[in-house]
Amino acid sequence: MKIRILVTGGTFDKEYDELTGRLFFRDTHVPEMLRRGRCRVEVEIETAMMIDSLDLDEPGRAEIVRRCRASPERGVVITHGTDTMVETARALAQANLRDKTVVLTGAMVPYAFGSSDGLFNLGSAVSFVQVLPPGVYVAMNGQQFRWDAVRKNTASGVFEAIA
Amino acid sequence: MKIRILVTGGTFDKEYDELTGRLFFRDTHVPEMLRRGRCRVEVEIETAMMIDSLDLDEPGRAEIVRRCRASPERGVVITHGTDTMVETARALAQANLRDKTVVLTGAMVPYAFGSSDGLFNLGSAVSFVQVLPPGVYVAMNGQQFRWDAVRKNTASGVFEAIA
Amino acid sequence: MKIRILVTGGTFDKEYDELTGRLFFRDTHVPEMLRRGRCRVEVEIETAMMIDSLDLDEPGRAEIVRRCRASPERGVVITHGTDTMVETARALAQANLRDKTVVLTGAMVPYAFGSSDGLFNLGSAVSFVQVLPPGVYVAMNGQQFRWDAVRKNTASGVFEAIA
Amino acid sequence: MKIRILVTGGTFDKEYDELTGRLFFRDTHVPEMLRRGRCRVEVEIETAMMIDSLDLDEPGRAEIVRRCRASPERGVVITHGTDTMVETARALAQANLRDKTVVLTGAMVPYAFGSSDGLFNLGSAVSFVQVLPPGVYVAMNGQQFRWDAVRKNTASGVFEAIA
Repeated sequence: MKIRILVTGGTFDKEYDELTGRLFFRDTHVPEMLRRGRCRVEVEIETAMMIDSLDLDEPGRAEIVRRCRASPERGVVITHGTDTMVETARALAQANLRDKTVVLTGAMVPYAFGSSDGLFNLGSAVSFVQVLPPGVYVAMNGQQFRWDAVRKNTASGVFEAIA
Repeated sequence: MKIRILVTGGTFDKEYDELTGRLFFRDTHVPEMLRRGRCRVEVEIETAMMIDSLDLDEPGRAEIVRRCRASPERGVVITHGTDTMVETARALAQANLRDKTVVLTGAMVPYAFGSSDGLFNLGSAVSFVQVLPPGVYVAMNGQQFRWDAVRKNTASGVFEAIA
Repeated sequence: MKIRILVTGGTFDKEYDELTGRLFFRDTHVPEMLRRGRCRVEVEIETAMMIDSLDLDEPGRAEIVRRCRASPERGVVITHGTDTMVETARALAQANLRDKTVVLTGAMVPYAFGSSDGLFNLGSAVSFVQVLPPGVYVAMNGQQFRWDAVRKNTASGVFEAIA
Repeated sequence: MKIRILVTGGTFDKEYDELTGRLFFRDTHVPEMLRRGRCRVEVEIETAMMIDSLDLDEPGRAEIVRRCRASPERGVVITHGTDTMVETARALAQANLRDKTVVLTGAMVPYAFGSSDGLFNLGSAVSFVQVLPPGVYVAMNGQQFRWDAVRKNTASGVFEAIA
């Protein structure tokens, strides 16, 4: 089963700029992460944008929906900043993508940091997308939530189920 | 949903002995890996043994089966050396564990190495075990296989589907 | 020979804040770095401040001079942000610390990043401080410069000799 | 000042063989380590051999001496296994290399492991070689010893001064 990974940026892909001392985006780390995980799932990687999800506006969100809809693969993983991941999940669900399984994932710490949770989350999202029924999900920290059953707790930084 | 992780050793947990220059087993890295993945799944970790799976004999395999059967959790991840992972999967399947979902996983490179696939595989196994129907599976490199549909290709080192 | 390491912050010690997505200072990584280097030099670690060297003002610089002067050890390594490292070196030289050998070092990439140069630079500075004659030096990227023979090239980010 | 790094293998350069689960030698990591340290010292890297120093015999040791003597650079760092580093240092000292400064270094843990001391030691050796007077030295764990003033304590694994 072939899947698509749609890259939008987020903490996952932040890098350290040696000259300015700031975090910035360059290329996605997803291919390197899949190599490190020796991932044997057939994967098509598509970079939609490389931004902080706080900077994602409605046209950007519509662009993500459009690309998901256009994906020939039924399983789509979206790497996404955590701050507005739930909003994008909602936009995707409301777009009614029919038989597609869409799993949004991200990281609390950039992959370029030694202590990143990114590789764990990517392994998790790539797995969930293959076996979950059609729908839109958020996969973080080993858990998966339906798009309308999760929120990011901004105080603790973790994703949690809502009733 | 609470899951159990049954640790048996394998490449996952090999460490470098500074005095002898050899690889050896000490404590499992699974708790550290779950912390790094910021895993929020409720997990009970149980160390059954710490061995190279080439050294796993029938009594050892029976012990793994016994502990799986005794697990109060319905989802069990087993960290295991790759060389005889499929044999242990078969023993578990033949033991008929009923409504349990058992997922065996491992690593090609020890977690203590910077380039390890372990964190990716653990994220994957923890995810598959929550959503796959009862049965015994091998989860490696982002893929999952039923116990009787997989073999390790000893020439290439990868797990592949068999017809 | 016992040496002192005076910590002032800088890129060396920047960490990633999971909640805000910004870099910040918490505790110094110097003890962890010395453990990783299995450093057997007797070392006294003293944290003077934890700041970006762009935020270091004259009172702060005077405080560094004061602590260097007060050090009972003749060899002092100072971990320091690279942006104003040369200014602090000048202040130390003008303070005339007599028989002390002072070596300032830093990093282009935080130690918490996998790709950091910090461990290399710390190994270098700890070595130079033991064998260089009294004076004030900057040690970066395997090189050492007298305080009045170096500048940071702000375009390229590297330290270079000046005539 | 240009220096030469003569690579002989040792723990520094051990890698993990995914198929056999054993440690082995392939290419040296020294160039990658210098890049990571953003080393700006002009360096010529020469691989003499890639072996465990326990396997180094007299012809091999003579080959190291020959290459050191032939080096046009006056400063030579030798990366070497720790088990017989002191023997090679003695052979070099007895060969009377005149005005050359030779610094042997190594690692307790392979660079490919996350917890390696290699980068710290390489930064240290590259620094010592630039400032120590002609002679043969062992640089480990931030310290430097004259060739005839050091031994490896095989029980603790550390290098220590002898009277």
